[in-house]
Amino acid sequence: MASLQDIGVSAAINLLSAFAFLVAFAILRLQPFNDRVYFPKWYLRGIRSSPTHSGALVRKFVNLDCRTYIRFLNWMPAALRMPEPELIQHAGLDSAVYIRIYLLGLKIFIPFTVLSFVVLVPVNWTDRRLESMDLTYSDLDKLSISNVSAGSKRFWAHILVFYVFTFWTLYVLYKEYEKIASSRLHFLASQKRRPDQYTVLVRNVPPDTDESVSEHVEHFFCVNHPDHYLTHQVVYNANRLANLVEQKKSLQNWLIYYQNKYERNPKNKPTTKTGFWSLWGTTVDAIDYYTAEIEKLSKEEAEETERVISDPKSIMPVAFVSFKTRWGAAVCAQTQQSSNPTLWLTEWAPEPRDVYWPNLAIPFVELNVRKLIMAVALFFLTFFFMIPIAFVQSLANIEGIQKVVPFLKPIIKKKFVKSIIQGFLPGIALKIFLILLPTILMTMSKIEGFTSLSYLERRSAGKYHLFILVNVFLGSIITGTAFEQLHQFVNESANEIPKTVGATVPMKATFFITYTMVDGWAGIAAEILRLVPLIIFHLKNTFLVKTEKDREQAMDPGSIAFASSEPRIQLYFLLGLVYSVVAPILLPFIVVFFGLAYLVFRHQIINVYDQKYESAAAFWPDVHWRLIIGMIISQLLLMGLLSTKDAELSTPLLVVLPILTIWFHRICKNRFESAFVKFPLQDAMVKDTLERATEPNLNLKNYLQDAYIHPVFKDNQIEVPTAIYEDENNPLVPTRRTSNRNTPGESKRSSEISSEGRV
Amino acid sequence: MASLQDIGVSAAINLLSAFAFLVAFAILRLQPFNDRVYFPKWYLRGIRSSPTHSGALVRKFVNLDCRTYIRFLNWMPAALRMPEPELIQHAGLDSAVYIRIYLLGLKIFIPFTVLSFVVLVPVNWTDRRLESMDLTYSDLDKLSISNVSAGSKRFWAHILVFYVFTFWTLYVLYKEYEKIASSRLHFLASQKRRPDQYTVLVRNVPPDTDESVSEHVEHFFCVNHPDHYLTHQVVYNANRLANLVEQKKSLQNWLIYYQNKYERNPKNKPTTKTGFWSLWGTTVDAIDYYTAEIEKLSKEEAEETERVISDPKSIMPVAFVSFKTRWGAAVCAQTQQSSNPTLWLTEWAPEPRDVYWPNLAIPFVELNVRKLIMAVALFFLTFFFMIPIAFVQSLANIEGIQKVVPFLKPIIKKKFVKSIIQGFLPGIALKIFLILLPTILMTMSKIEGFTSLSYLERRSAGKYHLFILVNVFLGSIITGTAFEQLHQFVNESANEIPKTVGATVPMKATFFITYTMVDGWAGIAAEILRLVPLIIFHLKNTFLVKTEKDREQAMDPGSIAFASSEPRIQLYFLLGLVYSVVAPILLPFIVVFFGLAYLVFRHQIINVYDQKYESAAAFWPDVHWRLIIGMIISQLLLMGLLSTKDAELSTPLLVVLPILTIWFHRICKNRFESAFVKFPLQDAMVKDTLERATEPNLNLKNYLQDAYIHPVFKDNQIEVPTAIYEDENNPLVPTRRTSNRNTPGESKRSSEISSEGRV
Repeated sequence: MASLQDIGVSAAINLLSAFAFLVAFAILRLQPFNDRVYFPKWYLRGIRSSPTHSGALVRKFVNLDCRTYIRFLNWMPAALRMPEPELIQHAGLDSAVYIRIYLLGLKIFIPFTVLSFVVLVPVNWTDRRLESMDLTYSDLDKLSISNVSAGSKRFWAHILVFYVFTFWTLYVLYKEYEKIASSRLHFLASQKRRPDQYTVLVRNVPPDTDESVSEHVEHFFCVNHPDHYLTHQVVYNANRLANLVEQKKSLQNWLIYYQNKYERNPKNKPTTKTGFWSLWGTTVDAIDYYTAEIEKLSKEEAEETERVISDPKSIMPVAFVSFKTRWGAAVCAQTQQSSNPTLWLTEWAPEPRDVYWPNLAIPFVELNVRKLIMAVALFFLTFFFMIPIAFVQSLANIEGIQKVVPFLKPIIKKKFVKSIIQGFLPGIALKIFLILLPTILMTMSKIEGFTSLSYLERRSAGKYHLFILVNVFLGSIITGTAFEQLHQFVNESANEIPKTVGATVPMKATFFITYTMVDGWAGIAAEILRLVPLIIFHLKNTFLVKTEKDREQAMDPGSIAFASSEPRIQLYFLLGLVYSVVAPILLPFIVVFFGLAYLVFRHQIINVYDQKYESAAAFWPDVHWRLIIGMIISQLLLMGLLSTKDAELSTPLLVVLPILTIWFHRICKNRFESAFVKFPLQDAMVKDTLERATEPNLNLKNYLQDAYIHPVFKDNQIEVPTAIYEDENNPLVPTRRTSNRNTPGESKRSSEISSEGRV
Repeated sequence: MASLQDIGVSAAINLLSAFAFLVAFAILRLQPFNDRVYFPKWYLRGIRSSPTHSGALVRKFVNLDCRTYIRFLNWMPAALRMPEPELIQHAGLDSAVYIRIYLLGLKIFIPFTVLSFVVLVPVNWTDRRLESMDLTYSDLDKLSISNVSAGSKRFWAHILVFYVFTFWTLYVLYKEYEKIASSRLHFLASQKRRPDQYTVLVRNVPPDTDESVSEHVEHFFCVNHPDHYLTHQVVYNANRLANLVEQKKSLQNWLIYYQNKYERNPKNKPTTKTGFWSLWGTTVDAIDYYTAEIEKLSKEEAEETERVISDPKSIMPVAFVSFKTRWGAAVCAQTQQSSNPTLWLTEWAPEPRDVYWPNLAIPFVELNVRKLIMAVALFFLTFFFMIPIAFVQSLANIEGIQKVVPFLKPIIKKKFVKSIIQGFLPGIALKIFLILLPTILMTMSKIEGFTSLSYLERRSAGKYHLFILVNVFLGSIITGTAFEQLHQFVNESANEIPKTVGATVPMKATFFITYTMVDGWAGIAAEILRLVPLIIFHLKNTFLVKTEKDREQAMDPGSIAFASSEPRIQLYFLLGLVYSVVAPILLPFIVVFFGLAYLVFRHQIINVYDQKYESAAAFWPDVHWRLIIGMIISQLLLMGLLSTKDAELSTPLLVVLPILTIWFHRICKNRFESAFVKFPLQDAMVKDTLERATEPNLNLKNYLQDAYIHPVFKDNQIEVPTAIYEDENNPLVPTRRTSNRNTPGESKRSSEISSEGRV
């Protein structure tokens, strides 16, 4: 282990660099021309607009007001000032709950730090195992459990403190789950009318030879939910159309770019090349070329639209079915419709923004196969990812490059360049893989076929968590590739594994302290600077923006990357839990991480991020579960460690903890999870009753009509044929009604009348 | 291993003894005075009545018709003759599906036997490992995989055949699950009106300071299921009352016994002793004594009834809520009612016979703790059950007995008696434990707090399966107590365990062949003889029976003991799967077991058993899951075995199978399980519509009024206050209705009118 001084110096350097980031941020954010990068959320809200000082032109770009620089750190208290209810209102529950994860870290680890520094550090420090063994050791080691002699009575202190830690963590977790579950229910209850409250996503509508999908859905729900069914919206397979629209948008951007260029410099008519990425091919006039291309695409798009709307094959066996009441939708979402449980599958519709449209077109039978393949792929990705990287690394050597691009030979031959390539290339391949990893995992989740963005993010986060657990945490403790670990684990007894791993844990404290500083602190500080969006915004602003509306579009507020950032937080939770009694010196670093992160992300969700969807904290059960996994790992490792220290009496004491933790998890699951999965009928009924009292003439059908239309139709304002049986002479079998119920025809009539009355 | 001849002799002996049982049965069943023991089901159906031949008295007891003895085996074809739909009609779906488990065994293992005798036996026989090793070996060993040399190419045959077996088993399992799921749906759909179709069990009704439980339930469901709620029945804590009734019944039996005795021998007035089990205490006149005791109990019973009905504290926060339609009940059972998911818990009501009343009184908060304690207890029971038994065995030696009952000393001192005691006592303690085990497990399940008999049985079966798996299967393969195995497993690597176990498997083939014959064949043959019910019936018949009705009650038709017999079947499945490629010689014995069992149980369910409840084959997902477990165990063991035989290339090939099997299980679960858990709305709607058309004037409320009353009230015809708000001026808030819906008051009125019209 490094000495206390080394760690001190390293911490100072890292703190300074983090501070440098913060200062850079503080200065950049005060410049008006960066305003849209650092405060996009307020622009999107329409509360803030481009600075239009009547001063000199330069003041439009650079802030010359010195007073503001003096208070350059005042964003920090500002970020903390907004109370939570307002924050939920402002940024949504997802974001508000997301930053509560950091707060949870503080709640757990501040008491940990205090207790372990008061009790464990003196206990470790005053023993003299390392002295007696005549080893070279540092002060840091003396603070850790390594300094306690084997079989010492002092381990009782560790076990006792660990018990306190465990119960404290469980208590905090329980309170947090309770709070978030009630927040969620309150949030859902206080929300305004939203289409997804009335709507259910129906998948796997069985084919019918006599009826179209739309007719079949209408008939089925009229028969089986006679009092509640209102309308439905079929889903078109518009994936190709969406592609075309995307392509057209990109071409239009280029057109605007060249037009701008031409306007600024009318003498030089801009040209482009027709080949790939405009790198080769014949040179043509850029504006003409792109105009022609856009026209071509527009035509193709119109044809495709025509095809999608008219071809019955482009209608998927999927529909968004809406009900007259929230109660009706809640009932339909929670019940099984048909005796074949793979047909007429109903689930809550995600909110329209949250729908991942391409996956709605996947045939249901494929899903099982896709999931199996992805599970196997995830296994190989986690344990064997080094193999392809090693292959790339072996290719990407000097000789390989010389072969592929011979004209670079003279440059490569230079010694300086050569050494850089040889030094960096292997690392770069790994780095690129790690940067791409969240995207790869997201693609895998997409292949699995989930239909909402929020669920896709949650699934990717789960995969990423596994990867980090195996390759970062275990990979750092047991050196060697994941595959070697796997091999070792398979060949070791269930008893040995925690021992092997546990015994190595104290040795790696220094490494994880450094990791926390470099990856954690610096990463958080870099997050607030938003370097990439800053550069892209200025590029776009220079080349593409003509109107205020363009500038609006050039802003990239971004959003919380739940899929990649939550698993990383979990790593710090895991480190804190594992090292809490083993090497308490790690804890302050974790606390600083959580504190800094809380501050920064609170600022970001207030001023920057614009969430793409709102899932009302649906991710919390996952977060909770991963924390439980972390706790169990820490308990097993401590058990292993202590049994190598001749404190074997501790095992029966410690074995209680995992059992208790799993039991706690089950209780929490029973108690709270359904708040995240189901929608209680009582709440639905209350909202329905209230709505009926306050807005008796509401025309819900009009409101829901276009809610779930593929965005490609919505954005392009293409008319899509909607509900079919608008006419009065509804062909539905009236024999299935008793006299004291309305036929759907009647209720429709009454709703139409009421809507007419209102209009 | 024993030689082929040994096994042949043993098989002959066992076959003969089984045959002896069958002959004994064939003779006993033909005697008229045993008729009620061997054909109770037909008596309960009212189709058969006591033999009243006009012949000699002796013919009433003994069958003197010689011709019937010639055809004494004709019950066998008779048992097979009844077609399945009629069987379902006659014995219920539970029984019909239960015997399909045996049929499934035949379907799986007959092709196994054929294929392995055609392919594997020659492959094993023609190799010469055992010869070359100069070991003593028998013919049996030559038939098993032990005869194949290490690293031989012949193992490909085993792997190939194992693949075929696996796919065949999966195919048969899939088909069976499909068949049973559709049978269940068909059975449920074709059933007549039953109270449980309309009823939902609501647990954990929250306390309310202003309202009684009954009022609270009424209000809650009137508000949240306004169009569907019909009535409800609260649950009284009548456990003490039920005890009193039970005691009284037993006293009455004794009274009848002494009255009968007195009638037959009027000179001698019967006396009894007042102490424990009438063994000691003052001697009194028996008839007077029991009459007085019964009177005392009757008074106590009346008081208790009064208390239960009038005391609001005896009303549990549990209710059976009935709905106007099956659709309404299906909706309520499948949805969450309140935002607190531990309140207003709804589930399908079990049918009235199936309700386990004592557990309805358990407070809901206790359940989590009870489950944890029982899980820990099950663990200790499974792995440490030998400890208390060894303790009892150490006490139950000659000296111990002499101390406790000194007057037996002279008898014990005799050498013959002494040797018997010393030889048998230790075995008896274990045997008693094993006989009591299903009862212990059932008690544990009851403590866990499940509310229906069928579910209790299923849970007990799960526990018993674990016990058999660990203590019979693994315990026989790896000698040593379960605790020693556990210790070994914890200390061995995940890789080693299948190797250690797998390598021992072939050596135990002889043992399991013997086990199959002694436990399986003989057990099944004894089952048909019904020795215990036979004796008890004749005892009761002699001492208690006066009227024909008494004789009816003296019959004990019994029922399938699912909780104890299904896990035993699973053991034979497991043996068949594990030994299918290792020692195919075991397979014919398994096949004979399944064939014999199928025949016997088919006879029993047709003629004997009277099921206490009907769960419509709700146990099938459990059976399926345990078969999957068996398959995975067999795959792992074969993997382990082959890797010790230097056929390590086989591992990657075989590792695919468990993954495939688990995936198959998930598909089956998705595809079929909901048929056993949920009730689809479509089917409910069809039945509702049909009912409305055929019986428009049905008074459902009257029909459901008394369906879910505690049996103690029903049997004793005690009037219990039922639904409360019968009057028209229902105090429910009418503001929550829109004009196009009925208030519950209205609907009640209309149903009352219709019922009046009918009456």
